[in-house]
Amino acid sequence: MTSKEEAGKLEWRISVDNGTTERLVPKSGLSKRIFLCLKGLVMKVIVERIAKFTRKAWRIGADDPAKMVHCMKVGLALSLVSIFYYTRPLYDGVGGNAMWAIMTVVVVFESNVGATFSKCVNRVVATILAGSLGIAVHWVATQSGKAEPFVIGCSVFLFAFAATYTRFVPSFKARFDYGAMIFILTFSLVSVCGYRVEKLVDLAQQRVSTIAIGTSICIIITVFFCPIWAGSQLHRLVQRNFDKLADSLDGCVAEYFKEKEVATNQKEDEETNMKLQGFKCVLNSKGTEESMANLARWEPAHGSFNFRHPWKLYLKIGAAMRRCAYCLENLSICINYETEAPEQVKKHFGEACMKLSSASSKILRELADMMKNTRKSSKMDFLVFEMNTAVQELQETLKTVPIETNKPDEEISSEEDNKGDSEDITMSMSLHEVLPVATLVSLLIENAARIQTTIKAVDELANLAYFEQDSKKKTGDNNTKQPPVGS
Amino acid sequence: MTSKEEAGKLEWRISVDNGTTERLVPKSGLSKRIFLCLKGLVMKVIVERIAKFTRKAWRIGADDPAKMVHCMKVGLALSLVSIFYYTRPLYDGVGGNAMWAIMTVVVVFESNVGATFSKCVNRVVATILAGSLGIAVHWVATQSGKAEPFVIGCSVFLFAFAATYTRFVPSFKARFDYGAMIFILTFSLVSVCGYRVEKLVDLAQQRVSTIAIGTSICIIITVFFCPIWAGSQLHRLVQRNFDKLADSLDGCVAEYFKEKEVATNQKEDEETNMKLQGFKCVLNSKGTEESMANLARWEPAHGSFNFRHPWKLYLKIGAAMRRCAYCLENLSICINYETEAPEQVKKHFGEACMKLSSASSKILRELADMMKNTRKSSKMDFLVFEMNTAVQELQETLKTVPIETNKPDEEISSEEDNKGDSEDITMSMSLHEVLPVATLVSLLIENAARIQTTIKAVDELANLAYFEQDSKKKTGDNNTKQPPVGS
Repeated sequence: MTSKEEAGKLEWRISVDNGTTERLVPKSGLSKRIFLCLKGLVMKVIVERIAKFTRKAWRIGADDPAKMVHCMKVGLALSLVSIFYYTRPLYDGVGGNAMWAIMTVVVVFESNVGATFSKCVNRVVATILAGSLGIAVHWVATQSGKAEPFVIGCSVFLFAFAATYTRFVPSFKARFDYGAMIFILTFSLVSVCGYRVEKLVDLAQQRVSTIAIGTSICIIITVFFCPIWAGSQLHRLVQRNFDKLADSLDGCVAEYFKEKEVATNQKEDEETNMKLQGFKCVLNSKGTEESMANLARWEPAHGSFNFRHPWKLYLKIGAAMRRCAYCLENLSICINYETEAPEQVKKHFGEACMKLSSASSKILRELADMMKNTRKSSKMDFLVFEMNTAVQELQETLKTVPIETNKPDEEISSEEDNKGDSEDITMSMSLHEVLPVATLVSLLIENAARIQTTIKAVDELANLAYFEQDSKKKTGDNNTKQPPVGS
Repeated sequence: MTSKEEAGKLEWRISVDNGTTERLVPKSGLSKRIFLCLKGLVMKVIVERIAKFTRKAWRIGADDPAKMVHCMKVGLALSLVSIFYYTRPLYDGVGGNAMWAIMTVVVVFESNVGATFSKCVNRVVATILAGSLGIAVHWVATQSGKAEPFVIGCSVFLFAFAATYTRFVPSFKARFDYGAMIFILTFSLVSVCGYRVEKLVDLAQQRVSTIAIGTSICIIITVFFCPIWAGSQLHRLVQRNFDKLADSLDGCVAEYFKEKEVATNQKEDEETNMKLQGFKCVLNSKGTEESMANLARWEPAHGSFNFRHPWKLYLKIGAAMRRCAYCLENLSICINYETEAPEQVKKHFGEACMKLSSASSKILRELADMMKNTRKSSKMDFLVFEMNTAVQELQETLKTVPIETNKPDEEISSEEDNKGDSEDITMSMSLHEVLPVATLVSLLIENAARIQTTIKAVDELANLAYFEQDSKKKTGDNNTKQPPVGS
């Protein structure tokens, strides 16, 4: 405070140890205090939000270091391409248009190889196509004398219209959406710029060469520095989804038949719950699968995937898996059903259901293994046979379901095994009571049928992608995956 | 053929009417004929492919003329922005950088208002941010003398790393992905260009002004010429999905209980089949809903949607709808079940099931109507009551399910109504035979419960978005949507 401000104010002073006095200043006025308080609050909110965002970002990086690597690669590519600015001969070599190279790197560099390739190819091809077309239109326009702007304007309108239109055709959009945009961009630039720029061909050539520089830097860095392949990601996604389905299936059926009295600790509960919900990942992975399969097609051969790896089949497998997941989603109906099925009914079905569910989940795990090792399975025939047997047993159990009887519980459990003589083991209960069990059974049986479709899809992939034979047992005939017993 | 080539060749000549002779030339050599044949084949294939593509493209345009309009708008915007090239004062006004304006239009113009807005805002904000940061870094770098390229290189690496990293955070990516890319682009351009370009501030200012020109042209055209709103599209999508669910539900249940003998003509069959498959649209619309809801948030108030319309609730409604669709997906189990349920069981359940399904689909249609007219429904309470009654009746029917009886069919149908005395109307049949019906019943009951969740979600939307009261009957209390009978 200046001395002027202090004049005419009351002051509190206090004697301090060393003999001088110190002024006691009120901390601040009310308005100032409110301001400080608000400021603190706002700062706190902002700091908290930033901290939250940072924590979230950190977790993403920690969960998947590949993402960190990608960020580093982007930085590296940009640093590399900016060398064209720092070294005079290179800068002059591209006619001072090094900017386009930087732009290309920023726009084209994607986190996986497929996406980068697809964008590179799209950008180069579209630029060349549109560039030559633009030069042609420019030539026509210059011949037309005064009507030049009109001719250019019309052609820009028409080509922009046509190229935008193609972006609505799904099959085209999936592969060449970016190319169509670059086509419009380059065509407009070349044909319109031609009106002002003298050396149009030079400009076009520089643009093409800078784009070539940018794309080649991107491709080199993306392929040779810790490459992230869309194909491998898709492959792993499908494999993980098989595991998740198996966990969910086991979990749901076990949850239904488990004794309610057993106390479990909370952490275990949470873990089980997460496993139960695994099928939701499968339900939601359609979009990811589609885009990955689309990008994987652009990738060169890598790892165990050839250039013409049948990526489309992954979509088929994914669809088949999702159909299983729909069944599992509805299993929750049985678990949450309001009227609990009577204990003896549960007991009656428990064994057969568990057997079927474990046979089914074994197959799912085997499929995950097949994907993981890119090997054909030697056990699959046996597992399918086991599952079909379990289905048949469950159906037999259904036929001998004890309805309308007054026999005590003990006898029933002892008689569970003599299937076939349904007359003497019937209990007095209505369909209402057995409804959840019946639903469970029918969903499990349907699920088994859907798993068979999934097996067929994976087998198709194994054949087309030349998966190796399982080393443990070389079966000569791969087409005999048909279940020995009709499904 | 020249005379030189002809020398030493045999020739066939024929006398023609006017006295001269004409040479008979063999049509072509074998190789030439093969070449022509191949050429024809290739041409045919290409022409066919182009024709197919054109037909497909035409159908897309015919189905949705809005797409045509969008293409025209792109052409219009580009023609408008190229005026900056044709008129000298405008061209000089932006320092010959009109190119950036064209680029902005091509990159930013999207088919709906929300997407265009989001890209415009992202582009402008990111450019200004990155531009000022780039100038600051450039200033620091020039102070550091010889280390200039090193300082710039490091800062480019760091900022590119950070910006790329944020693109992996889902909540950030959903809204600012494009902005992050433009940030990297502008920052690299400004800081690196600064090494060569003298008047950096002028360059930055020109870039900002050209981008401003481009974005304003885009916004004006997209908003004032036949605007396509992401919000309206989302709203209509949800509404259509309700209708599709209702059709599917009705169709599936009718399909199950229909008399197999009735001959239907093929066209009708196809139509029914398409209706049956309606739920698949609901299953697959998650991605569309999410991106639409994301874009709709950027849109200004339009039609009956305010600026702060609760678009997020559409995702909740969509999720609730999908849960209904899962049930419908599994209804196909019952339809395709290998063992047909006995006729009398079907008859016994037919009426109650049809009643429940029609009550459920009535609610779905009412929800579609609510969405269509953005009005609260006055009938909903009654419809929910009806559905709950139907559920209870179906449960009663379950309790009196006729198992183990030898009474003839006629008596059963007459006795259907005296529920409660299950002792005397029992038929000899196992659970195996009634399994499909039991599954159907339990899925229908579950579906009814899930529809209740959907109603709650739509009610929440109606309250938050201030849907009008239905004019037919003004109910004062909107919170009494609770079903009069427990679900």
